[in-house]
Amino acid sequence: MIDLHAIQTEVEKLIRKAGAIILSASSSPVHQKGGHMNYVTDTDISIQAMLKNGLMALIPECLFFAEEQENEQLTDQYTWVVDPLDGTNNFIRGRKYSSVSIALLKDKKCILGTVFQPFLNELYTAIRGAGAFMNGMPLHVSTLSFDKALVDFGSSPYYIELTEATAYAFREFLLNCGDVRRVGSAVMDCCDIASGRAEIFWEMKLSPWDFAAGSLLIEEAGGCFMMPYQDEIDLGRPACILATNAVCKDQALQIMYAAKERIK
Amino acid sequence: MIDLHAIQTEVEKLIRKAGAIILSASSSPVHQKGGHMNYVTDTDISIQAMLKNGLMALIPECLFFAEEQENEQLTDQYTWVVDPLDGTNNFIRGRKYSSVSIALLKDKKCILGTVFQPFLNELYTAIRGAGAFMNGMPLHVSTLSFDKALVDFGSSPYYIELTEATAYAFREFLLNCGDVRRVGSAVMDCCDIASGRAEIFWEMKLSPWDFAAGSLLIEEAGGCFMMPYQDEIDLGRPACILATNAVCKDQALQIMYAAKERIK
Repeated sequence: MIDLHAIQTEVEKLIRKAGAIILSASSSPVHQKGGHMNYVTDTDISIQAMLKNGLMALIPECLFFAEEQENEQLTDQYTWVVDPLDGTNNFIRGRKYSSVSIALLKDKKCILGTVFQPFLNELYTAIRGAGAFMNGMPLHVSTLSFDKALVDFGSSPYYIELTEATAYAFREFLLNCGDVRRVGSAVMDCCDIASGRAEIFWEMKLSPWDFAAGSLLIEEAGGCFMMPYQDEIDLGRPACILATNAVCKDQALQIMYAAKERIK
Repeated sequence: MIDLHAIQTEVEKLIRKAGAIILSASSSPVHQKGGHMNYVTDTDISIQAMLKNGLMALIPECLFFAEEQENEQLTDQYTWVVDPLDGTNNFIRGRKYSSVSIALLKDKKCILGTVFQPFLNELYTAIRGAGAFMNGMPLHVSTLSFDKALVDFGSSPYYIELTEATAYAFREFLLNCGDVRRVGSAVMDCCDIASGRAEIFWEMKLSPWDFAAGSLLIEEAGGCFMMPYQDEIDLGRPACILATNAVCKDQALQIMYAAKERIK
């Protein structure tokens, strides 16, 4: 049996090192990946290599899933799920809102989640059953109601078939809630729900490294992490994501169900 | 004749002082203003009082326009136009994305603009005819084309009659451009255009303190600052705003014209 608290301490050191690389790489050479607005930078790749080395040394039998590589099917084994640089387009454009996300899975469930936003020096940590924290302070979702809710969303710009569904949900949330935010980092959107800085987060399609650590942070902070278009949470493949505080769950789900009809 | 460079030096000191107040006021008591999601905090009010004192001492004959007071008609006199805390809802929710904006007008035109984002320590400055700068480095709008453009927008949450027009424009920009951002600070949206971090910014209705300084930053960085629903730029009253780099102007205007038909 591994000691998750000891692992967490080491993960913190690695993720802060990743954050330092992001801060120092103010202008990284850019390579165009296949697809629309989907970039990868030398910084992503070098951070991923550093994290893979460090994390695999912590649990040698662990599998490793990450954005900048091909990934296998998820199993019950220990598995690191890593986003070396979430909010890559923000990073490329000089927008100081990106983060690093590291999740540890066992039996296909997230048991340890760590996120670091280096520009604001915010470290988010959670171990299953032991609560969620930001820079050591306990996190709790907000209690704000649906009509006053602040709604983070993602626009899934790589998937044109989802644009109508996204536009529909955008309009419904704007009409019925307090206001909307689109910051360009799904990892930080999850942290916003956990920390009570927003009540609702949705995006039509995200990849496991975008939400694996965030899902545990949200649950440990008392929130709801959902995949409204499938029967069960599956951290092994892309999915539509909805995360809410406890009170906004049902009304937010209704909009997401109606939006599903607009997917092409 | 006043020495704008000497004035700018003093404005910098005042705006950094305002930023320090924002940073120290991590949890400010909140009062509900009239209207939906429109809050004002003790921090707004105390910053505005400090800035008014300091700015009026610099040019005693100057008029003073600001968010947290009733304002007269704009005249040809020297006039300070101040937003003591833009992105108030971000501030209240613990989202570290707010700024202070100070504009000096003469003959109804902005001749000096200063913006400070304290969480990122970014100081934006412009004097008409002398260029725009961020922390002393010259700013230039981007040259990215419309189909790849990053589009900042505001959702005008206080004006329900504008929601359909906002939802329409959101969908059109998402369909035709690279991606969208909604950060919750119009002042910073303007700075994004000036600094080349985004190509397009639009919002259906903003107040003069939201865009007065930003309009000069954008123009001095080579961008286009427009009020698409009126014949002339008027910094004295609320307006629909469109700001772009040079290449995205015409296509963005077409969407804004079409959106106007959806205003109720």
